[in-house]
Amino acid sequence: MAKASGATTLSPKKIYEAKVAELRQELVQLQIDLLGSRTKVVLILAGVEGAGRGAALNTLMGWIDPRNVETISVGKPSDEERERPLMWRYWRSLPSSGRIGIFVDSWYTRTLREEVRNPKDLTELGDELRRIRHFERLLVDSDTLVIKIWFQLSKTDQGERFAALEADPDKAWRVTKEQKQAHAVHDRWALTADHILAETDRPGAHWDVVESADAKPRNLAFTQTIVRRFRAHHQRITRSRQASPAKPKRIIAMRPEGRQRLLELPLEQHLNSKTYEEKREKWLGRLNKAVRKAAAAKRSIVFVFEGQDAAGKGGAIRRLTSAMDARDYQVIPVAKPNDEEKAHHYLWRFWRQLPRDGRVAIFDRSWYGRVLVERIEGFCHPREWKRAFAEINDFEEQLADHGTIVVKYWLQISKEEQLTRFRSREQTPYKQHKINDEDWRNRRQWSAYETAVGDMLALTDNAFAPWHLIPANNKRFARLEVLRQATKGINAALKG
Amino acid sequence: MAKASGATTLSPKKIYEAKVAELRQELVQLQIDLLGSRTKVVLILAGVEGAGRGAALNTLMGWIDPRNVETISVGKPSDEERERPLMWRYWRSLPSSGRIGIFVDSWYTRTLREEVRNPKDLTELGDELRRIRHFERLLVDSDTLVIKIWFQLSKTDQGERFAALEADPDKAWRVTKEQKQAHAVHDRWALTADHILAETDRPGAHWDVVESADAKPRNLAFTQTIVRRFRAHHQRITRSRQASPAKPKRIIAMRPEGRQRLLELPLEQHLNSKTYEEKREKWLGRLNKAVRKAAAAKRSIVFVFEGQDAAGKGGAIRRLTSAMDARDYQVIPVAKPNDEEKAHHYLWRFWRQLPRDGRVAIFDRSWYGRVLVERIEGFCHPREWKRAFAEINDFEEQLADHGTIVVKYWLQISKEEQLTRFRSREQTPYKQHKINDEDWRNRRQWSAYETAVGDMLALTDNAFAPWHLIPANNKRFARLEVLRQATKGINAALKG
Repeated sequence: MAKASGATTLSPKKIYEAKVAELRQELVQLQIDLLGSRTKVVLILAGVEGAGRGAALNTLMGWIDPRNVETISVGKPSDEERERPLMWRYWRSLPSSGRIGIFVDSWYTRTLREEVRNPKDLTELGDELRRIRHFERLLVDSDTLVIKIWFQLSKTDQGERFAALEADPDKAWRVTKEQKQAHAVHDRWALTADHILAETDRPGAHWDVVESADAKPRNLAFTQTIVRRFRAHHQRITRSRQASPAKPKRIIAMRPEGRQRLLELPLEQHLNSKTYEEKREKWLGRLNKAVRKAAAAKRSIVFVFEGQDAAGKGGAIRRLTSAMDARDYQVIPVAKPNDEEKAHHYLWRFWRQLPRDGRVAIFDRSWYGRVLVERIEGFCHPREWKRAFAEINDFEEQLADHGTIVVKYWLQISKEEQLTRFRSREQTPYKQHKINDEDWRNRRQWSAYETAVGDMLALTDNAFAPWHLIPANNKRFARLEVLRQATKGINAALKG
Repeated sequence: MAKASGATTLSPKKIYEAKVAELRQELVQLQIDLLGSRTKVVLILAGVEGAGRGAALNTLMGWIDPRNVETISVGKPSDEERERPLMWRYWRSLPSSGRIGIFVDSWYTRTLREEVRNPKDLTELGDELRRIRHFERLLVDSDTLVIKIWFQLSKTDQGERFAALEADPDKAWRVTKEQKQAHAVHDRWALTADHILAETDRPGAHWDVVESADAKPRNLAFTQTIVRRFRAHHQRITRSRQASPAKPKRIIAMRPEGRQRLLELPLEQHLNSKTYEEKREKWLGRLNKAVRKAAAAKRSIVFVFEGQDAAGKGGAIRRLTSAMDARDYQVIPVAKPNDEEKAHHYLWRFWRQLPRDGRVAIFDRSWYGRVLVERIEGFCHPREWKRAFAEINDFEEQLADHGTIVVKYWLQISKEEQLTRFRSREQTPYKQHKINDEDWRNRRQWSAYETAVGDMLALTDNAFAPWHLIPANNKRFARLEVLRQATKGINAALKG
């Protein structure tokens, strides 16, 4: 042992191997630590053609423990993807807690490629980059470690690399036609890339540039970057370990005018059974026509039903669906998230359920749980539900931008009416499963819910996804109103 | 109270309401029991146009507890679906344990519809129905309650129903063009349907016919059928509650010749580093060409890597992927199933990961775990792993029928070589994560694995998905052999 510590000069190969050994050990240890902390890791590989992204990935896969790693390559969008908002294909590929997702293609691929072929005006490109920033912000905010690696290669080095490969008949296949084309436009492409990188280099989602002229230094630098980011993230979460938020004592309104709007709603409405049935058939017919028109125009429809317990969401939904063919819609009852859903951003399970063009999804409760029950019960941190208003608006704007028609209902009943319905549920044997302790607990929070609902109404009532307030003490009136607003909402969207 | 019990005659409406109340109560109770037992329920709704499937479904949704229920309507296949074997779209929609999936469209829809428009010859239809029977058998075998309801309506009743609706301007929209067309071909359609029903009425997957001339009796009969099936299933599983299978004492060969084939493999091979590198580049080039040809022909490729612990699967996979563009393939490391995967048939997670046409999936371990580790460790019942050979052959045949090229490897090392590699892993800091107690435990089962592998080789070595046995004591030789067999396998499939 003593001999080996002499001042012998090591060969470059030995030095490299020693570095690799050290790096691999740290990489694997950090990987274990990070995954144990339930972190989600998004690793984006982008860069210049021929810089060796694939080879670097292959090397990494030999060094990392591959069991919790998935590589994601999205390629050309499928029709299922084209028929949903742009970001749907990335949402469906996001890694869950404790997993690493390596994006070989990413939300940058399309932007980069199109921008070179066919430069957009600055506003349009700006919009795209803004959307990317929002998305990465959302990832970072929800315990995702975002690592973005740019493999850099100068035009000269790129040219030399391709020439060397092509000179060897056994290796010439490694240079593709696309790569030769990329070489021709290297300069213009590099300018675009610089702009995109600068515009998307943000706290928590920085770009790391890896110089890729030579394979071994590139692989080392690439892995060192990952190790550095892993280590920094690990230190950050170890420092900031916080107790889960306690149940809030008081719910204070952010927008009292929202609550006011709710309180002013005239809940008592009258509608006799005969008039109701006549009008219902009429509106069902109109709604059917509207839904079919939307389908013909390849527009999808998302209905959101929110309301107090026992406000009559289920009954209203069944009247709504009786205007449609069972093959065209899907009702999605939203309960507590399961383990897989909990291992993702709270919007993930809703993104997953978005309908294809021409189809209808009806959410029986929805993403608004984040600013209602989760806010009131303290299931998430105040900064999380506060952030949720903007996230939800952004989500619904993406839906609307894609062409999805969003119709949102809040069904409101009085506290007395709820009591009557709770009692009736308790006394009817086949309705007893509809009432449990949680419903009574929510009821004791009546006033807190009024405040939270008020904030929700005030902060998420957008032109592209308006709220319809439905007075629901009279079930017939409420159901008819749901049909009427659905029809009007769809027709307005089809005209607009 | 005494007064009410007099022999007063009840009105039909009251009788109906009393029946409904009783039925709903039993339905909800059985639902709770069944879901508590982690049963998966597949409910198929099929039948004559205009029989009121949609209305019956709507009624059911008002009576059942909708929280664990999902309706599935598959519609026209998307490209993602077309680019995978036929049944992929149904596999992806199957309910997990404790959930009810209601198929408004199902694997019968296409067969029924096409068969009426354009009757197939009997062999072809027979193949389709055989595949359906296999699929339902597989569901029934894996704790799925399969309920198939046929809504029956005579041509006369159908005609009257449409006429009545069309006479009312508020209801005329309920009769669609498709329904009128269906009315015209009712007789021919009914004959086809009779044949299909008879051919797919099997133990555990019986058809129940619901007469649908009138709405209320139809809804009652429909729900009663479900209740009856729920009840029978509940009684069955309560009676048959079995202890989970104990770890088997001895593994007895089903096909000793398979084990023999394994033992006869010449494990020691020689290949010096220089020759290896030269040959490797050649084969990488050839493989790259083959993979690109497959992609151009829209053929997907599935690689399966199995082998003892430390046999070198990971290294061989990385050599394989170095011949491909990182955007074209996906490596899928297969570990213990997670909770969601456990809540499904064991093949479900592999169906989910099947590549689209023109793409490559590389499974690092696979569905063969069922007949290897699960058999040896007693993780499943003997009848389950015995059944698995046929299920796997059927699965791979579906892949091949679709055009997927399946290349399967078993990497074999000697017991001594494994020991050397285990020791090396223990002594190299960055490799320690690759070795754990489980590896040592598996090693003690060496002979049991030989038997199980032998059975697997003998029972699943099909022309459409052959096994390649790779002597792997020499890593270089094994890697080259993997490249060579991959190339040959792909080229042969492209010619065949």
